[in-house]
Amino acid sequence: MDYYSGYITKLIDELSSLPGVGSKTAGRLAFHILDMPQDEVEGLANALVEAKKNVKFCKCCQTLTDQEICPICSSEERDQKTIMVVETTKDMAAYESVGEYKGVYHVLHGAINPMAGITQNDIRLKELFERLKDDVDEVIIATNSSVEGEATAMYISKVVKPLGIKVTRIASGVPVGGDLECIDNVTLLRALQGRVTI
Amino acid sequence: MDYYSGYITKLIDELSSLPGVGSKTAGRLAFHILDMPQDEVEGLANALVEAKKNVKFCKCCQTLTDQEICPICSSEERDQKTIMVVETTKDMAAYESVGEYKGVYHVLHGAINPMAGITQNDIRLKELFERLKDDVDEVIIATNSSVEGEATAMYISKVVKPLGIKVTRIASGVPVGGDLECIDNVTLLRALQGRVTI
Repeated sequence: MDYYSGYITKLIDELSSLPGVGSKTAGRLAFHILDMPQDEVEGLANALVEAKKNVKFCKCCQTLTDQEICPICSSEERDQKTIMVVETTKDMAAYESVGEYKGVYHVLHGAINPMAGITQNDIRLKELFERLKDDVDEVIIATNSSVEGEATAMYISKVVKPLGIKVTRIASGVPVGGDLECIDNVTLLRALQGRVTI
Repeated sequence: MDYYSGYITKLIDELSSLPGVGSKTAGRLAFHILDMPQDEVEGLANALVEAKKNVKFCKCCQTLTDQEICPICSSEERDQKTIMVVETTKDMAAYESVGEYKGVYHVLHGAINPMAGITQNDIRLKELFERLKDDVDEVIIATNSSVEGEATAMYISKVVKPLGIKVTRIASGVPVGGDLECIDNVTLLRALQGRVTI
């Protein structure tokens, strides 16, 4: 793409390195950015650098935050004895957007995946087990319903149960509004096994 | 989205303002950026600011470039008497990637669109007509095959023809590899009207 100016080529290359951004999308974004007012471009660039500089892991739940201890871990309104274990900060945000959960979280930043060489030591499990030395009533495992998520859930329950702490797993089944005929067999089987009396 | 740190929310907001980036994509990009090494994030931010600062319009063909006169306009290997008129720098790059065209370009940065209030004075037509005072053999109109592109082509040909300069329009028809049954009626009609003897 040497028919563009070097600065444009560089910008397109940088943007293409982002996930889900191919060279066509990168081109569209680059020309949009060149069309934006100078101060807006600087605003975007600053947001990138400032976020990277200031965001760190919460010392307690390991979520991404700009404070030593994140607002949820330091909140007196949250039940600090119930810990929901999630894979990513985004999963935590998903449950926060529901608004019903009043406990706290623990973000693993990944899941056990031996095929990719990710063991229990590569995700933030050590920090979770450290927290269990305090007074904890329940650990809710909300890892994804994937092979890796299930393996991680299994591992956590094996370690935590002997400590006498209640371990639960979020329900697996038919999504609300889901059409039975479009749902895969494993999910249908799980929904049957997990049936509840009404 | 106040369950994220302020810096993350700000970054997601900034990214969402880009075209084709919704809040979900912005979230994915933001967390990817937080995962990138600090120097890569700074590289991306710099690419944004540097491109915006250094890229300007070529004094001759109006394309986006970092020089006063772009490499194509200043090349002695290009036929400076044949001007292809395109809507955007990306369209020019598309023809450059083909590699066959040896003339020069003129980038309008838009097309006439009365519905959106864009008249012949809002795109870089004045600069095109100024160039025609030099010795020009042919003006190839390669605006898009949309209503706006056609209107712009019509307007240019009306102004340029009386100057005694040859005006041509790129062919409209069935795309190579295109399946006739999937192609719209207007294109089929154009392809028929524009048929060539073999």
